[in-house]
Amino acid sequence: MPPVTSLFGSSPKTVNLEIEHWMNNLNEVQSVINTVEPKLNTTPTKWKAVFQHVKEVSEELSQIFNKEDPHYDVILAGVNAGRKFDSAQAEIAKSDSVRDSALNRLRKYRDEIEVLRREYKEREKVRERYDHYRVKLDNLERKGKDQPRIERNQQKLKDAEDSYHAVTAEVIQKMETCWKKHVEVFAEASIALWYMQMRMVDEFAQTSEDVRPFVDDYLKNMKSSNTSFPNQDYMGEDASAAKHTKDPLANNDSTLDTDNAFPCLEEDDKQESAPEKYPSIQSLTA
Amino acid sequence: MPPVTSLFGSSPKTVNLEIEHWMNNLNEVQSVINTVEPKLNTTPTKWKAVFQHVKEVSEELSQIFNKEDPHYDVILAGVNAGRKFDSAQAEIAKSDSVRDSALNRLRKYRDEIEVLRREYKEREKVRERYDHYRVKLDNLERKGKDQPRIERNQQKLKDAEDSYHAVTAEVIQKMETCWKKHVEVFAEASIALWYMQMRMVDEFAQTSEDVRPFVDDYLKNMKSSNTSFPNQDYMGEDASAAKHTKDPLANNDSTLDTDNAFPCLEEDDKQESAPEKYPSIQSLTA
Repeated sequence: MPPVTSLFGSSPKTVNLEIEHWMNNLNEVQSVINTVEPKLNTTPTKWKAVFQHVKEVSEELSQIFNKEDPHYDVILAGVNAGRKFDSAQAEIAKSDSVRDSALNRLRKYRDEIEVLRREYKEREKVRERYDHYRVKLDNLERKGKDQPRIERNQQKLKDAEDSYHAVTAEVIQKMETCWKKHVEVFAEASIALWYMQMRMVDEFAQTSEDVRPFVDDYLKNMKSSNTSFPNQDYMGEDASAAKHTKDPLANNDSTLDTDNAFPCLEEDDKQESAPEKYPSIQSLTA
Repeated sequence: MPPVTSLFGSSPKTVNLEIEHWMNNLNEVQSVINTVEPKLNTTPTKWKAVFQHVKEVSEELSQIFNKEDPHYDVILAGVNAGRKFDSAQAEIAKSDSVRDSALNRLRKYRDEIEVLRREYKEREKVRERYDHYRVKLDNLERKGKDQPRIERNQQKLKDAEDSYHAVTAEVIQKMETCWKKHVEVFAEASIALWYMQMRMVDEFAQTSEDVRPFVDDYLKNMKSSNTSFPNQDYMGEDASAAKHTKDPLANNDSTLDTDNAFPCLEEDDKQESAPEKYPSIQSLTA
């Protein structure tokens, strides 16, 4: 791309649109890094909020339960799962080599852009030298100065111009190479983001296995106690369907009779087999 | 339980420890309701925070991507999954009959306790009347008043006492019945809490299916490019093992060489088959 020379002003400045273009591109990349890097870093805190909340509510609900109470089993399962997940998410948040790598790479990439920004500014000196001799020669020629002096400055201008073009081409080359990396760096950041979510979700799915049967039972009872229930086929014996928890009343157009919608939670033998992992429930004898 | 009469004071007050016990129990229940009810109501906002965050970061990472860029497929999958989940969680938050039922029942239960609190206070009048005749008869007898007057007041005291015992027994009975409900109401609240989490997690697992292959590929590449990788058997062909996302470097005791830890994201044919669902990525031709 040929240099564009300003037509006006006492010090016409050579502008290279290509290097400006790449600097703009790198600024865009850096702006994304500046937004994403702190967010990727704090992603676990969002999960922490979810699961501290679940743990808290589960524990609050357990406060006045006794081991002998009906439904102690679901309360116990909830408290155990809440606690287990809360410590698991802390572990995931603490140690995540994929996130650490992605963050590290984002930061290194930002540093690399900063180095190029300095080179871009350094190049200004070369550009100024080039413009200096261009203006000077222009003046010498306009004023009809002696030929040897003009030739001497023509040589200086040529050197400055060569240097200007060489440095410009070099910085542009580096900028382009640097800019192209963003696709890989950002793809890794995206993978790190989703990897973190998946670990959290997988951990949750595993940890909540003990609670799921209670929820499924409840939904089945809800279905059988609600005569106007719309999806008679739902929550049947199909284990995989039951696995995917759906709102059984979501498509119910009839007005929800909340009294009917509470299935009677029946006590069964589960209570006796409930693991006694939770000794700290307050013992309040009524 | 016999009434306990204070030995001191000008107006000895009959105290029934049983009714105080049940009122205390109901206060404890109400305190749990007051804590849990608003939290159960705002549970979806915690999830909203997680998934708005994921959606935002995914979109920010996509900002300067072009359709033709390498790794556009993972960026696209991330953006699509982030958007899909964000609207799905809003839907789950909006319509959840299990949560609505549990909240409704918690609120009705609180109202029921409030009614009993009023009855408990109303009973004070009956207690005051009883104590009034007790003190009065005591004074009449102490002052040696005439027998007919004493007998008239003995009858009044008997009526007041009968009424006091009847009302007390009735309120205690109601309180006990009411209190016992907490196990079922709280069990339902716990189920509603976990049901909500499970729907969110199930939705996430389904929505993120398109992103998971990229994450799994990345982890495989990470493994093969890291020679000091500790778990050589991990991330093999076992689909169920690969399904459960684990940190492949979590047990790596050697210092993490982050440069080696970045697997080269290789372009493959996925890009060509990526669905063009995402037309709004800014088209910036470099």
